[in-house]
Amino acid sequence: MRAKNPKESRTVMTDMVLPSETNPLNNLFGGELLARMDRAASISARRHSRRITVTASVNHVAFNRSVPLGSVVTVEASVSRAFKTSMEIFIDVWMEDRFTGERTKANEAIYTFVAVDETGIPTEVPPLKPETDLEKERFAAALRRKQLSLVLAGKMDPSAATELKALFT
Amino acid sequence: MRAKNPKESRTVMTDMVLPSETNPLNNLFGGELLARMDRAASISARRHSRRITVTASVNHVAFNRSVPLGSVVTVEASVSRAFKTSMEIFIDVWMEDRFTGERTKANEAIYTFVAVDETGIPTEVPPLKPETDLEKERFAAALRRKQLSLVLAGKMDPSAATELKALFT
Amino acid sequence: MRAKNPKESRTVMTDMVLPSETNPLNNLFGGELLARMDRAASISARRHSRRITVTASVNHVAFNRSVPLGSVVTVEASVSRAFKTSMEIFIDVWMEDRFTGERTKANEAIYTFVAVDETGIPTEVPPLKPETDLEKERFAAALRRKQLSLVLAGKMDPSAATELKALFT
Amino acid sequence: MRAKNPKESRTVMTDMVLPSETNPLNNLFGGELLARMDRAASISARRHSRRITVTASVNHVAFNRSVPLGSVVTVEASVSRAFKTSMEIFIDVWMEDRFTGERTKANEAIYTFVAVDETGIPTEVPPLKPETDLEKERFAAALRRKQLSLVLAGKMDPSAATELKALFT
Amino acid sequence: MRAKNPKESRTVMTDMVLPSETNPLNNLFGGELLARMDRAASISARRHSRRITVTASVNHVAFNRSVPLGSVVTVEASVSRAFKTSMEIFIDVWMEDRFTGERTKANEAIYTFVAVDETGIPTEVPPLKPETDLEKERFAAALRRKQLSLVLAGKMDPSAATELKALFT
Amino acid sequence: MRAKNPKESRTVMTDMVLPSETNPLNNLFGGELLARMDRAASISARRHSRRITVTASVNHVAFNRSVPLGSVVTVEASVSRAFKTSMEIFIDVWMEDRFTGERTKANEAIYTFVAVDETGIPTEVPPLKPETDLEKERFAAALRRKQLSLVLAGKMDPSAATELKALFT
Repeated sequence: MRAKNPKESRTVMTDMVLPSETNPLNNLFGGELLARMDRAASISARRHSRRITVTASVNHVAFNRSVPLGSVVTVEASVSRAFKTSMEIFIDVWMEDRFTGERTKANEAIYTFVAVDETGIPTEVPPLKPETDLEKERFAAALRRKQLSLVLAGKMDPSAATELKALFT
Repeated sequence: MRAKNPKESRTVMTDMVLPSETNPLNNLFGGELLARMDRAASISARRHSRRITVTASVNHVAFNRSVPLGSVVTVEASVSRAFKTSMEIFIDVWMEDRFTGERTKANEAIYTFVAVDETGIPTEVPPLKPETDLEKERFAAALRRKQLSLVLAGKMDPSAATELKALFT
Repeated sequence: MRAKNPKESRTVMTDMVLPSETNPLNNLFGGELLARMDRAASISARRHSRRITVTASVNHVAFNRSVPLGSVVTVEASVSRAFKTSMEIFIDVWMEDRFTGERTKANEAIYTFVAVDETGIPTEVPPLKPETDLEKERFAAALRRKQLSLVLAGKMDPSAATELKALFT
Repeated sequence: MRAKNPKESRTVMTDMVLPSETNPLNNLFGGELLARMDRAASISARRHSRRITVTASVNHVAFNRSVPLGSVVTVEASVSRAFKTSMEIFIDVWMEDRFTGERTKANEAIYTFVAVDETGIPTEVPPLKPETDLEKERFAAALRRKQLSLVLAGKMDPSAATELKALFT
Repeated sequence: MRAKNPKESRTVMTDMVLPSETNPLNNLFGGELLARMDRAASISARRHSRRITVTASVNHVAFNRSVPLGSVVTVEASVSRAFKTSMEIFIDVWMEDRFTGERTKANEAIYTFVAVDETGIPTEVPPLKPETDLEKERFAAALRRKQLSLVLAGKMDPSAATELKALFT
Repeated sequence: MRAKNPKESRTVMTDMVLPSETNPLNNLFGGELLARMDRAASISARRHSRRITVTASVNHVAFNRSVPLGSVVTVEASVSRAFKTSMEIFIDVWMEDRFTGERTKANEAIYTFVAVDETGIPTEVPPLKPETDLEKERFAAALRRKQLSLVLAGKMDPSAATELKALFT
């Protein structure tokens, strides 16, 4: 299969924050943002694989900034690395102040999707060829994240996770 | 503040999977499940703290089983450990087959919430006193998870994360 | 068919009251509560019968207490009596104050569901075996309610509704 | 206050049945219909009283006909009797077959609403003056229903419910 | 096919304006009103044709009055002219003040729908026979609008649009 | 005020077509697309003006292609011309086939928004400075469209609409 670059799967989902999506402090619910990111990442994974794609996992996500009612939220998702049948999707979330237009980073998140056929069986996906420096850096880190994920799931012996182990020793 | 036990914050959210929540394979969207878990966890955190609570982070979540259209999904959330102003919430997700009623574990997830006052400033929460063996086990593991979270966020030196380090060495 | 007890069909649906579900006084719409109770009761009926279940009727429901925006609402449904192909579901609704956590009874309601096969034909359901005093009391009252329902629908002669008649004479 | 006739509060709400509102047999959920009727009845009560109106109770509702996906559903609500601060609303529900256009009665329901001021205190509403034969018949029956409702709520002695008692003796 | 009159397709959709449908000034989103009008017009077109109907175009719509949160909005749609396989639907939108009940015209809009069979192929629809003066006036104007639409789409030579040309010369 | 170029207001809203948004042929409802375009256009107008923006009008919209369930729909909106207090927004809608990824133009639409202050009074907006050939072409055409809109609203004498008149004579 022809390798694709991250631009080919780039997906931009811009939308407002409405009253039914906010908590008692009038900020966007974390769960609502997780759902928007899942939809954007799912489209990105489909654009890379041209297959049905299903969410396999979500990496640790920190909600460092609250997103107020009425903000414009932009979710940008691209494939950061492709494995045999799965893809890591890197998601950047930006918010714009309603009045000043100031754009700040609200969140980052990393989802993994698997490509499947009509019966739900995993199928191969094209490799990813990163081009910019940021794309290359995310591509490299994806391997460490996959190892951590396997270790946490009990599917890889920690001592075999060479990249990860280096962090702690 | 009087310590509370996990039963006092236990929250059960049972609901069906509707057509507008499913992907092309007729299974529940991962993002939709993340949003339901956030709502249940938020209620659990509020029951423990009696404060406004906001999502601080979501741990790694793996979607190992697909949840078909028409299933009954039960999300059960309880506080698994309380820190100064934050609470770790452990969530078990069960699904029931529409016809046989067979109940299987669909997912586990761990969210962290912070208790805040009306202006959004973090406020203290009661300690948690685990009682059953499972509650004690989750309570202990919560500390390792917090260390991992701090290391990943660059807020703790890996060598200081003694509990975590033991895993890799 | 093996008799089941009410615990086997007990269904708990906890959720918040969001802005899009409230009237101009910022209280939960009655219709929204009726819809939540229908979903919980439908799951309870399915758990008892392991069949597709459809709403047959709703008993008189009084809305004695308003449920404010931001409350946590818990809908608890259990089968209170099984007839040949139908089941009476008793529903208790609790609300929790957002800040004090005080839990008060918001509502009671009684729905009747029919179990049907894939073509919509009613099919037999297991009998119910009440165990606690409250379960036994609700089980007995269900017969009077069924008689009232049949009389109101013109399907039973009032003079034959012996249990009910006793109330008025 | 000037008496109003039922036409002045007549409210027609026509809409389709969408996939997310249907059960596994592809028929409209009972709870979804209860919610639509509540919205229509609430508008009808507001048109009669020109006040904020809140649902006080729902009479026994029987779901005799299933309403298939894709049907057009018409909910028609009018005030059938006004008491001091409350109004009984009579609701007729019609469904139209998607292809033949055949219009059949799907349901009837009776809701009671209370008019309140901005602080939630019940306030007086205009009397109702029925005009057609059907309006007069529903107006008369409303009194019997109110008595039944008071008896069931334990707020009226059955022996005082003269209109109702006549049914059983 | 028997000609039908506009009354036979008249569709009334009354509903409230809820918080999740309003902009930062607490008025109904234009897009939400466009969607409600599309649903009402689609039902009207189906009532005239007894076919599946799909939106073909929307005429110029001006939003002259804002519709505040809590208003009651009534969308009234009727077929104003039938062509071979398409129908023009004229829509009047009324809003009622929450407290005074004053009813004012909020909008007018004109949608065109095409009747299709199960495979999406356009099929013939009955002719329309206008009866009242207003119906006759809208019927006549529909021809000018169709010409304008064809000219704007580049499907009719402006010089052949005799009715329309008269406006400008 | 500093002139802005169309890129500064460019808004991309990518999302899927879900079951609850489709008609009986399993294609996206026209009204649902109108609502999505309104949300995207509203964000674009806000990005240009940094004010609250409200929909003033929608130009004639033709739905030439149906958008099937499961498609990915991309709505792209940019300001095409700014007047004193209003902005014309040009919207291109693309759809992607679920499996082949083939991207086709689904629709074009033109909305007009007005910038207002917190009390709803129209306020001035920056001028637009088109840069590419396409931007310049849309900028020029916007004036003809404004004239047509004024003529149709009876606010401009057709003989004064010089640009427009040229089309018909």
